Amino acid sequence: MSKLRKIVLSEDDMPRQWYNLAADLPISPYMGPNGPVPPEAWAPVFPMNLIEQEYSQERWIDIPEGVLELLTRWRPAPLHRAYNLEAALKTPAKIYYKNESLSPAGSHKPNTAVAQAWYNKEFGIKRLTTETGAGQWGSALSFACSLVGLECKVFMVKISFDQKPFRKLMMQTWGGNCIASPSTETKAGRDILKKYPDTPGSLGIAISEAIEAAVTDPTGQTRYALGSVLNHVMLHQTIIGLEAKKQLKIAGEKKVDVVIGCAGGGSNFAGLSFPFVYDKINGADIDIIPVEPSSCPTLTKAPYVYDHGDTAKMTPLVAMFSLGHNFVPAPIHAGGLRYHGMSPLVSKAVKEGLMNPLALHQLECYEAGLLFAKTEGIIPAPETTHAIAATIREAKKAKEEGKEKVILFNFSGHGLMDLVGYDKYLSGQLTDYELPDEVIQKNLEEIKDYPKP
Amino acid sequence: MSKLRKIVLSEDDMPRQWYNLAADLPISPYMGPNGPVPPEAWAPVFPMNLIEQEYSQERWIDIPEGVLELLTRWRPAPLHRAYNLEAALKTPAKIYYKNESLSPAGSHKPNTAVAQAWYNKEFGIKRLTTETGAGQWGSALSFACSLVGLECKVFMVKISFDQKPFRKLMMQTWGGNCIASPSTETKAGRDILKKYPDTPGSLGIAISEAIEAAVTDPTGQTRYALGSVLNHVMLHQTIIGLEAKKQLKIAGEKKVDVVIGCAGGGSNFAGLSFPFVYDKINGADIDIIPVEPSSCPTLTKAPYVYDHGDTAKMTPLVAMFSLGHNFVPAPIHAGGLRYHGMSPLVSKAVKEGLMNPLALHQLECYEAGLLFAKTEGIIPAPETTHAIAATIREAKKAKEEGKEKVILFNFSGHGLMDLVGYDKYLSGQLTDYELPDEVIQKNLEEIKDYPKP
Repeated sequence: MSKLRKIVLSEDDMPRQWYNLAADLPISPYMGPNGPVPPEAWAPVFPMNLIEQEYSQERWIDIPEGVLELLTRWRPAPLHRAYNLEAALKTPAKIYYKNESLSPAGSHKPNTAVAQAWYNKEFGIKRLTTETGAGQWGSALSFACSLVGLECKVFMVKISFDQKPFRKLMMQTWGGNCIASPSTETKAGRDILKKYPDTPGSLGIAISEAIEAAVTDPTGQTRYALGSVLNHVMLHQTIIGLEAKKQLKIAGEKKVDVVIGCAGGGSNFAGLSFPFVYDKINGADIDIIPVEPSSCPTLTKAPYVYDHGDTAKMTPLVAMFSLGHNFVPAPIHAGGLRYHGMSPLVSKAVKEGLMNPLALHQLECYEAGLLFAKTEGIIPAPETTHAIAATIREAKKAKEEGKEKVILFNFSGHGLMDLVGYDKYLSGQLTDYELPDEVIQKNLEEIKDYPKP
Repeated sequence: MSKLRKIVLSEDDMPRQWYNLAADLPISPYMGPNGPVPPEAWAPVFPMNLIEQEYSQERWIDIPEGVLELLTRWRPAPLHRAYNLEAALKTPAKIYYKNESLSPAGSHKPNTAVAQAWYNKEFGIKRLTTETGAGQWGSALSFACSLVGLECKVFMVKISFDQKPFRKLMMQTWGGNCIASPSTETKAGRDILKKYPDTPGSLGIAISEAIEAAVTDPTGQTRYALGSVLNHVMLHQTIIGLEAKKQLKIAGEKKVDVVIGCAGGGSNFAGLSFPFVYDKINGADIDIIPVEPSSCPTLTKAPYVYDHGDTAKMTPLVAMFSLGHNFVPAPIHAGGLRYHGMSPLVSKAVKEGLMNPLALHQLECYEAGLLFAKTEGIIPAPETTHAIAATIREAKKAKEEGKEKVILFNFSGHGLMDLVGYDKYLSGQLTDYELPDEVIQKNLEEIKDYPKP
């Protein structure tokens, strides 16, 4: 072939260590009622080996051979050159994307799901619990648990459980036990059902149920797993960016100018970008852009504060950008981008000026997703269209400036389970929604007396 | 890594020629009312460059650079070693599978869709028509047409159009125009609707509509595309087996003992197996197994005859195994395996004793599919579970015989768009169905006076 469309690595070329940004960018501690939360306080929730990772200041952390073997089910992921998107945009920019849609669950989520399942198994745990909104994380964890031989229980927000049966069926096919939340299996669920029998459920309630189900197991052999936000989750995802660096070198690129990813809790964005943040901290000139929906503008409109990670206030306080833990986002199709907060590591990097966040409206994103599907051929997840739309903006800017920039973005997942969003876009049923500042201010009222990071 | 799970090729290692089995295994000619159908008679239906391929006796046919570039959107496809399935079965056999599920449409179908779209574009055609049942082929062709810049019109069997909206949405996202068949856009459709206003449609009717829409375009710039059965379709799919051969060599395998694929019209099976049939013709000892559902036992229970390829008898007579063109299969979930006939090349190879067909019941196949999902991690399409079930039988046989056999099967597609079948299996709603011999005999009555191949 005269020019390679994809750079593929062999399994032997996979990174052997994860990169831990916390070594280069210390973050404010998790805060409980009595001050900073010590590692051992998390012991009923997570296994100690993962808690150690959560608190680690080591820059490079070895990927265990067992985790590497699980990752080879689908990794290394190819790096694509988007020749046809470039041609459609008539841009001098070179556009590359890391294709994370090829995992059996269809997104980047399994990168941390298999690592978390493996560490729990190593620690002697028999069962994991988690919550899921639209189902992306619940299916990734069900997949991972089936591979290592753990039971998996997923509390799925009731309205999604009813309206999105296919994600639930994915979980069941992998042996996961997916139930609608609120459920009668936990006190938290029963209390809510007594008060609001017809509630559609919420991620906050589902988190409460999942944590309760883990910590109240009398055998002590159940733990909880989270799919984003926390440091160890970001850590596991850095394999994306570490692979991409090797691949860009093979492609002959000496330098990357722009790195882009969509950001909800932050995990796919962090996975691609943190190894480049390391370069930036060490002097490289890179524009690093987390992209969020205008309807949930955590990084672009919210303050950097201490807030709870969940609506039910079961988590410690986390130093992050937050729209307030009671924030109820608009029901956009990019379900993975509706989180009120943001990974503390991503938040800190934004706070330190290492990243330039961007908020986009969904119509622009769907238009970008369709252009991508028709040029590059893969239908993107609604979340991923945000990264594509930002890439198109940057490619157009490069054209105006006449610069042959190198742009890298994360193709975080395919949209085959989210086609209803495209249907609504194509039939003109979608509109844009700008979150009013008053709503943000009102939500932040409740946390105004929290400590400041 | 101590042992590689996947053998990946670089784009530079892709095969540069397709293998044409017709060079080594001449087939009986297509027959019309006036004897053998000459190539030029197909001109209103297909472009001449594809008709030449359909009739070619050349053993190796160059893959044009333009087609190679389209294939690199997702190819080469990895060859996986199924270590975990092997362990679960405690078999001494080494199981390999070619992963065709990574194409943007989720199956092997795009291998021929992009080739057909490219050849039509080269010939100056502006628009392709086709039919689709469950939607797998229609979405693959929509994908291909969007990449090369052709219009695409898909006549989708009405009951599937209504019951399986997601495949239709895939086509629309790629810009394909998918309409329910019978439609009012063709005479064939209108005639049927007048007689049976409430008909659920059928593949036979949809084929009639798609061909009519192609041949009656007054501009002469529309052609028809078929996703299986014909020689040029099998040809395009041989890239699967040709890649697999290179990969097995890299894996250090000097010999393959068993080659397995599911067979409906025959295309994924032919794609993997024909390069090994070539070896077998030249003396290699390989067991080559096409697997079909017991509810549509074309190769195991039907005779080798001349029959029409479609219910409406619009096609010439094809020499093949056939259950009769009026055969109505049971509504099993493996929609791609419900065809009454079979590729003439596959049929000829079976007739010549080069293959050992196997019919399996769907419960055994779903059980195999679940075991695969839980061990290897990928959820298989219902069609693909037939190849997996046969592989498991062979692996168990190898265990009984104490032989370290090398088994290769085609993982033709993922099941993310077909999860309802798994749900029905898991909830005990599926049963097995053996097609009674009387039904076969009755269907064959109508063709008993046709010429014999």
